[in-house]
Amino acid sequence: MRWCRFRGLAAPGGRPDAARFGVVEDDETVRPVDGDLFGEFRPRDEWLSLTDVELLPPVVPNTFFAVGLNYTAHIHHAQARGMTAAKVPERPEVGYRANSALVGHGAAVVKPADCAGRFEAEAELVAVIGRPARRCTREQARRAVFGWTIGNDVSARDWQHTDRTLWRAKNSDTFKPMGPWIETDVDPMGSRTLVAVGGDTVAEFATGAMVFDPYDYIVEISRYITLSPGDVLWMGTDAVVEMPVGKALGVTITGIGTLSNPVVQEM
Amino acid sequence: MRWCRFRGLAAPGGRPDAARFGVVEDDETVRPVDGDLFGEFRPRDEWLSLTDVELLPPVVPNTFFAVGLNYTAHIHHAQARGMTAAKVPERPEVGYRANSALVGHGAAVVKPADCAGRFEAEAELVAVIGRPARRCTREQARRAVFGWTIGNDVSARDWQHTDRTLWRAKNSDTFKPMGPWIETDVDPMGSRTLVAVGGDTVAEFATGAMVFDPYDYIVEISRYITLSPGDVLWMGTDAVVEMPVGKALGVTITGIGTLSNPVVQEM
Repeated sequence: MRWCRFRGLAAPGGRPDAARFGVVEDDETVRPVDGDLFGEFRPRDEWLSLTDVELLPPVVPNTFFAVGLNYTAHIHHAQARGMTAAKVPERPEVGYRANSALVGHGAAVVKPADCAGRFEAEAELVAVIGRPARRCTREQARRAVFGWTIGNDVSARDWQHTDRTLWRAKNSDTFKPMGPWIETDVDPMGSRTLVAVGGDTVAEFATGAMVFDPYDYIVEISRYITLSPGDVLWMGTDAVVEMPVGKALGVTITGIGTLSNPVVQEM
Repeated sequence: MRWCRFRGLAAPGGRPDAARFGVVEDDETVRPVDGDLFGEFRPRDEWLSLTDVELLPPVVPNTFFAVGLNYTAHIHHAQARGMTAAKVPERPEVGYRANSALVGHGAAVVKPADCAGRFEAEAELVAVIGRPARRCTREQARRAVFGWTIGNDVSARDWQHTDRTLWRAKNSDTFKPMGPWIETDVDPMGSRTLVAVGGDTVAEFATGAMVFDPYDYIVEISRYITLSPGDVLWMGTDAVVEMPVGKALGVTITGIGTLSNPVVQEM
């Protein structure tokens, strides 16, 4: 099942519709749903074309968890670029991102006017939590995952190196595209992640080749923190790709879909 | 005006009521409100005793911003304890906390069973955002603040030093008490912050003696990030106080109120 969050396209000068949840059918139709995505719901007798809606981030999390270094090749890449603190993690330690940075599939990623240096995409698998989880076993962690989506952990490297925190390097407006939807019927540990610039695939890796997998993280987080329905866990990347202004940056994870966002320059 | 978020106390074994917004009148009465705290609202003809309700965190932010080092004395204290990276900041740089850690006034702060070392309170002023803010001037930043509340940035120091991020050191469940309410009619830059353990005041400082004030932070954040109604900005502390298990930790900011939470040991 493919869950999305969407709104109707606004007429020129008009106010956008309210956000609604829906089910994507046949890759081209959205069927709006009444009720709670994570509880009781009922699809409506209403079918909309995917081309007539704006896809939004499929959930707005209560807490937005993000894994840092989680693929061996990415860590070696970071070390080679002078990030001497980049080490293969010995424990699954998580960080946080800002909801204010989230945008959906198709929305522009805006490169800030004063952002110099490398401006890079990090293609990531995202686990969406579907039920509360606290002190859970690995099996309970599996059951806590509602489904999977895709994230692009856009990073401004100069700010990452000069600032005390990741506040703007990874959390400026539009820096966290997520979508296009949540796929519930896939095991992404067997998927491949592909990154495309302007439609040309420039990087590819095995999605599941992680140091710690999503269930390792959920078990560890839940020792101290209650995960809630709608929380998201971004799983880190194995490919860092420069995002040229004027091109679309696409991330495909097989079995889930493609998240694509045009890169534009703030004037 | 004092805004709170609350729910009726649950009967033994019963389900808790849904959260509602209300106005606190005369320090003892809550008047529930229909509508939007940050927009149109109407108080109901209903009066509840403050003793009959559970106060919740007064807002659940879309984005939870937190300032680190922002008082000179606190920075010197951190340096003296071996945190050599603690420097007086040259720019107002913010970080993020997890909504999952929020609890309201009166709720227990639970010290995790495996949490060794210093377990400390950081008494903080909290600005609550009331309107969208992007690329704002200092005057617009002032108008973007809806009101003020109090936060206790509970910190497990051993984890802060050993972990790669603050994920559990500052964001374990119950580590972010916030409340008791939002006061709109105060200028807290002239307030005093008092910290009490078991009812005895053990520390006190001038709330406004900050390196960068809330408007400095809002101006800087809004260069890159859209602040939204309900977002909170925790302003850092000038007093670090050990939280003994079995005692209540109280933070008073004059003109706002007192946030008090019992400290209990996880078994």
